[in-house]
Amino acid sequence: MKKLVLTGAAGRLGSYLREPLTQLCDELVSTDIADDIGTLYAGESYMSGDLASMDDMMRVLDGADMVVHMGAYADEGPFEKLLGPNFVGAYNIWEASHRLGLKRVIYGSSIHAVGMHPKSDFIDTNVAHRPDTFYGLAKCFAEDLGSLYWDKHGLESVHMRILSCAQVTSPRALGSWLSYDDLIQLVTRCIDSPTVGFSVVYGVSDNDRAPVDNSQVNFLGYRPKDNAEQFAADILANAEPANPQDVGDMCHGGPFASVALGNSGMATMDIVDDTKKT
Amino acid sequence: MKKLVLTGAAGRLGSYLREPLTQLCDELVSTDIADDIGTLYAGESYMSGDLASMDDMMRVLDGADMVVHMGAYADEGPFEKLLGPNFVGAYNIWEASHRLGLKRVIYGSSIHAVGMHPKSDFIDTNVAHRPDTFYGLAKCFAEDLGSLYWDKHGLESVHMRILSCAQVTSPRALGSWLSYDDLIQLVTRCIDSPTVGFSVVYGVSDNDRAPVDNSQVNFLGYRPKDNAEQFAADILANAEPANPQDVGDMCHGGPFASVALGNSGMATMDIVDDTKKT
Amino acid sequence: MKKLVLTGAAGRLGSYLREPLTQLCDELVSTDIADDIGTLYAGESYMSGDLASMDDMMRVLDGADMVVHMGAYADEGPFEKLLGPNFVGAYNIWEASHRLGLKRVIYGSSIHAVGMHPKSDFIDTNVAHRPDTFYGLAKCFAEDLGSLYWDKHGLESVHMRILSCAQVTSPRALGSWLSYDDLIQLVTRCIDSPTVGFSVVYGVSDNDRAPVDNSQVNFLGYRPKDNAEQFAADILANAEPANPQDVGDMCHGGPFASVALGNSGMATMDIVDDTKKT
Amino acid sequence: MKKLVLTGAAGRLGSYLREPLTQLCDELVSTDIADDIGTLYAGESYMSGDLASMDDMMRVLDGADMVVHMGAYADEGPFEKLLGPNFVGAYNIWEASHRLGLKRVIYGSSIHAVGMHPKSDFIDTNVAHRPDTFYGLAKCFAEDLGSLYWDKHGLESVHMRILSCAQVTSPRALGSWLSYDDLIQLVTRCIDSPTVGFSVVYGVSDNDRAPVDNSQVNFLGYRPKDNAEQFAADILANAEPANPQDVGDMCHGGPFASVALGNSGMATMDIVDDTKKT
Amino acid sequence: MKKLVLTGAAGRLGSYLREPLTQLCDELVSTDIADDIGTLYAGESYMSGDLASMDDMMRVLDGADMVVHMGAYADEGPFEKLLGPNFVGAYNIWEASHRLGLKRVIYGSSIHAVGMHPKSDFIDTNVAHRPDTFYGLAKCFAEDLGSLYWDKHGLESVHMRILSCAQVTSPRALGSWLSYDDLIQLVTRCIDSPTVGFSVVYGVSDNDRAPVDNSQVNFLGYRPKDNAEQFAADILANAEPANPQDVGDMCHGGPFASVALGNSGMATMDIVDDTKKT
Amino acid sequence: MKKLVLTGAAGRLGSYLREPLTQLCDELVSTDIADDIGTLYAGESYMSGDLASMDDMMRVLDGADMVVHMGAYADEGPFEKLLGPNFVGAYNIWEASHRLGLKRVIYGSSIHAVGMHPKSDFIDTNVAHRPDTFYGLAKCFAEDLGSLYWDKHGLESVHMRILSCAQVTSPRALGSWLSYDDLIQLVTRCIDSPTVGFSVVYGVSDNDRAPVDNSQVNFLGYRPKDNAEQFAADILANAEPANPQDVGDMCHGGPFASVALGNSGMATMDIVDDTKKT
Repeated sequence: MKKLVLTGAAGRLGSYLREPLTQLCDELVSTDIADDIGTLYAGESYMSGDLASMDDMMRVLDGADMVVHMGAYADEGPFEKLLGPNFVGAYNIWEASHRLGLKRVIYGSSIHAVGMHPKSDFIDTNVAHRPDTFYGLAKCFAEDLGSLYWDKHGLESVHMRILSCAQVTSPRALGSWLSYDDLIQLVTRCIDSPTVGFSVVYGVSDNDRAPVDNSQVNFLGYRPKDNAEQFAADILANAEPANPQDVGDMCHGGPFASVALGNSGMATMDIVDDTKKT
Repeated sequence: MKKLVLTGAAGRLGSYLREPLTQLCDELVSTDIADDIGTLYAGESYMSGDLASMDDMMRVLDGADMVVHMGAYADEGPFEKLLGPNFVGAYNIWEASHRLGLKRVIYGSSIHAVGMHPKSDFIDTNVAHRPDTFYGLAKCFAEDLGSLYWDKHGLESVHMRILSCAQVTSPRALGSWLSYDDLIQLVTRCIDSPTVGFSVVYGVSDNDRAPVDNSQVNFLGYRPKDNAEQFAADILANAEPANPQDVGDMCHGGPFASVALGNSGMATMDIVDDTKKT
Repeated sequence: MKKLVLTGAAGRLGSYLREPLTQLCDELVSTDIADDIGTLYAGESYMSGDLASMDDMMRVLDGADMVVHMGAYADEGPFEKLLGPNFVGAYNIWEASHRLGLKRVIYGSSIHAVGMHPKSDFIDTNVAHRPDTFYGLAKCFAEDLGSLYWDKHGLESVHMRILSCAQVTSPRALGSWLSYDDLIQLVTRCIDSPTVGFSVVYGVSDNDRAPVDNSQVNFLGYRPKDNAEQFAADILANAEPANPQDVGDMCHGGPFASVALGNSGMATMDIVDDTKKT
Repeated sequence: MKKLVLTGAAGRLGSYLREPLTQLCDELVSTDIADDIGTLYAGESYMSGDLASMDDMMRVLDGADMVVHMGAYADEGPFEKLLGPNFVGAYNIWEASHRLGLKRVIYGSSIHAVGMHPKSDFIDTNVAHRPDTFYGLAKCFAEDLGSLYWDKHGLESVHMRILSCAQVTSPRALGSWLSYDDLIQLVTRCIDSPTVGFSVVYGVSDNDRAPVDNSQVNFLGYRPKDNAEQFAADILANAEPANPQDVGDMCHGGPFASVALGNSGMATMDIVDDTKKT
Repeated sequence: MKKLVLTGAAGRLGSYLREPLTQLCDELVSTDIADDIGTLYAGESYMSGDLASMDDMMRVLDGADMVVHMGAYADEGPFEKLLGPNFVGAYNIWEASHRLGLKRVIYGSSIHAVGMHPKSDFIDTNVAHRPDTFYGLAKCFAEDLGSLYWDKHGLESVHMRILSCAQVTSPRALGSWLSYDDLIQLVTRCIDSPTVGFSVVYGVSDNDRAPVDNSQVNFLGYRPKDNAEQFAADILANAEPANPQDVGDMCHGGPFASVALGNSGMATMDIVDDTKKT
Repeated sequence: MKKLVLTGAAGRLGSYLREPLTQLCDELVSTDIADDIGTLYAGESYMSGDLASMDDMMRVLDGADMVVHMGAYADEGPFEKLLGPNFVGAYNIWEASHRLGLKRVIYGSSIHAVGMHPKSDFIDTNVAHRPDTFYGLAKCFAEDLGSLYWDKHGLESVHMRILSCAQVTSPRALGSWLSYDDLIQLVTRCIDSPTVGFSVVYGVSDNDRAPVDNSQVNFLGYRPKDNAEQFAADILANAEPANPQDVGDMCHGGPFASVALGNSGMATMDIVDDTKKT
């Protein structure tokens, strides 16, 4: 591949992906809303751009083969706050990719698109949407958008429903953890698979307690190597007792399943991406 | 029921529903973007309002028990054109209904939320989304929104995926027709069912060739009475030969499955609702 | 068929079945725990017996071809109270039928064997057990018993999961009603079907709102004729508002889904069978 | 449609279809291995031909739009006996249809392609093959052939798995009966449906005891009108007791499920088609 | 966890679990029907009790957080013999646990609850019951009991359907073996999982030939480490030829699938638990 | 096992299996159409025979316990060319095995029996046939034949749907590769499993990108050890770009999915078996 674009490059996961992605292409264009993101890696350039602006996205994606779209407002918030970056931003990415002839979008979706399914359902990648937040609702929207552009324009996309790509600090994360190494493997498979059509894949490590089913997309070749069980003894020894009547303890979305809609008020959470807004 | 609101009351289907809905409540508030809609029925009042305005929707829904939400830009068009009435409009309806304590939203969804599924799949109401247009994408969005508000706020909704509520003029309509009488029965069931939670139901008559499966929502009691087979001999005698390689002939969405995304350019189509834009 | 036995013949449903069953055999032996049941029909004889006594059941079933087993304590109650008639009684019926060479057991099971499934699940006859009461738990036990005797001894059985065979007095019954005529048709099909192996069938009329799926046992030929929708207008006009957060309103078991375990304390309920205990 | 070909026109079912098919086309070409079939209907011509001869089939199908392929050795028999007419014959029909540009093959398949499935499985049209005889094996072969030519050449086909198109004389036929009128409706739908791709449909009337599931091909619009239950009282009163340990009583294939492979030795059976061999 | 109770502590599997369970709690109360069980482990105390006595179970479970319920008559036997310990005993455990406020029951269920399913069905944990013995019927009963108490009282339970926790001495055991180490891991996961609701899990090692599917309860984190394939060469070299017409060779229950109901007459079998009766 | 027969012993895969199979029996009879196959292994004898001749197959299989049937015309070709060796040949093998009392047929089937299923469907071993070539059609035929002889005669068979047992030279083979060692393990499991009934299993290594699902036949104990991912970097670096609109890139059958029916005209392909025709 010649040219690859990464959105949300200044965010938490985006920052982490920059260096590995430079290994997979001749030229990486990183983009975010900030004016700059500091020192660049070999093979990387930076272009500032607003996801909510079609002109910006047309400019940023010009000449690219694929885009890894991680940019978004990366927390639960009021619908009005997510409308621009998460909804319109996704539309701009797909429409610009289509106009410019890109081959594929690799999208940072989230478990929160299906977070209200009970954890006792071992959900596969064909399960119906069941968002837990406006944040998850925006992920549903982008997945449906990807389905539409594949069916109508032949634009491929893979939707990585990331569970928790962060330090393991809770019992839930023993099942939902995605290690950074496994994240990189996942993104690499999404890029190097010869064909993907429209696909959905869960972003989760090879945890003993992983509660989701990737078998439908076995052909992608994603085989995670890390396992959160290494942290189990410590985490469980210090955990608060769980409450089987609490949707946050019983549903795939975890804390997002019980959070107030539109206003998390939570200090920390296992969110996926993290576009810095200035 | 005391007070019911009907959005899109000036549209094609909305116009037809006004009189029957007055029979199901003490007070029907019809609303649309136009200044007035002419002569009112007994028990009906009219309030002008823009779906894209939260203030308008808060004003229109105030004091209501339920809302039948049929308002939308009722054709395929550019995403930008649908963003206000179809996406933001749906959000405003659900959020205002929640804030005001309504019990239920009855929504005019569409087969186009799943229109790219091949007709040889007898799709049920749990099938994954597969929109065929931006119009269908907006229906997917509203269905996910309904799921979210039910799970988080206990606000009930029924999503009527109407196939073709119009005169039977094509072979496809022999399967997809929804008669006006059956539409009224369907809306009535959506209103009088004691509980609906979050439900999806196909709006189609009892056609011999009906290609979709409502059995999952049998409990709603929707039992259509009309059958488009009465038109079959005439329609088939004069029909152009179908093309089994054409997605428009093979998929549930019909002409929307083969139309160009964002710009139908079609003179007539089997659309559901029809908010008059002035 | 020469000789047929009916247990629970003094109960509510048993009483109703006596006369029709005399039409299906040369000799009907009715049995219950009472000393007598009054005037007999032509072709009917009566034998008193206690379900919990193997000796009694061996005596009653001697020489019979099939047994229609409706006898049970017919309400929710303490486990200890149901242990004899509902659990041990079922064992005695199957074991005696096996020892005596009967061909088939037709069993009055109940929706309460699966009553905690949400009504939004259109449950078929293969769904896993999910009882709502000790009463339902006994039905689960008898179904498993029937499976065991079919697999190990070739003793056939049909398990009629009756929903509500009583007057329609609540919104729930609009879906769950089984008319007496349809009950008789159902029992007749269970008897005249050439083979049944081990089968489960829902006992429900052809209600518009019927929430369960008998398609897996289509081969039995049960095609109900009555429809509770005739009562809908009256019932719904006078019904209390339903509560979508109440398991009693949302689950198949209805009031048994929300009743206190082991002690109904309810004045009236839609129970199936009704062995008079003196 | 201009020109339609009917194979097996001298057989039992073929004979019955000749007149109705003349109503559906300008020109019907009937064919069989016999030299002539007597008096012709208006619009009908006859061409003698051997199914096992590609030359014959190329000659017979020339210029046709569709073919209704009912010709076959119509009973269980040694594999060697069926190889020509049933296997090679089917290949000749599909290959000649492809070479000559026909639009569609309507094929007289049979329940015997899936006859070893237990009747307690309500099999749908996607169930895996499970033939009960060499006769059924040939039906499996033709179905796979139809799938292949659709996928590779876009040649459409509908495979009518006929259950028992004959007088009702056994308890099994109470479920499996296909009336002649319903057969004609079925063939008509297979012809007039705008698109069929590759489809399988069970040929069975609207019997109360029908043991198979056509819902997957609802879009074809086949809605049988007859019901064998009208014969039930007589048939059941005089039937031998069934044996639940007998595969012939428990499997969809009925007597073919228990017949000796390759040599039926049965005087009468519920076979579908009946090419006269001279 | 502070206090844990183990029933059937004098039985074969119970004896093995005593020491490991002391590592998982501050205080382990072992119980069985015998007067004593000899030397105790650190942290362990012993209380004699009869499963069939509610008073005994109320006394034994008092103050506990969870109970590992392994006690039962541990072989096939007459129904009357199992009624007390296996049926009433299970009821007493759940009812006492509910009254005393325990959080969870971990139950020693068995493959014999579903043992008549053919081994060619890769059964998951949602499969319908299909017991192979009265022993298995009692396991079905306890599973339904666990479902009921979870739905009605929020009392959690995990039902470990153990296949064969014994030395590998037959070809069947190459698939069904559960090593002692894996048993301990399984029980540990059942205890340390933050929430389990009502769950079923197969107790089987990571055998190449394991015939059952635990994927639905992946969230429990049970990942067995042992593999009976290490014994395959020896076992297969000396095995009697299997008989594909024998239910014992073809069904999940193995020898219990072909044993006479109620009276095994077998010298050794792969049973789960083993309450010593004196 | 005493005596084992291997057909297609002169073919590519047959040649490879000869030596390992001598380890699994007292006497291996290798057969092919050639007069001789050169030097024999210890315990091996050779008999020339034509698959299309029943007499030859009766002679070759006489006295054997099982047969590994790999012989076939091992490429796509005209139907007429495959009719003898692939269709009639399979019939001869099964019929002769039945007449001679063999216990089991192990058959070299192929992914091409289901090759037109899209690779985004993770197909299991119960999926409906969907052949991609006449070659695949013959595999479908032999599978149905195996089902028939199991149901009617109790003759066991395992159908190994081999994906690509050849050097890894294309991106597709990263998923479809079956290593020689894994092939040997697979054939060994098919032979040493105590019972197999009628089973289908995919022949594929433990590739990260393996696109098919063997879980339904877990009981066979086939656990492949090799993984084509070791070749991924090289293969992908030099691969032509894939085309997501090409059935050859999107379907399980790979190049056979896009090849012209009946005449491959391809220089090399990933075919399974390879009977030398002289």
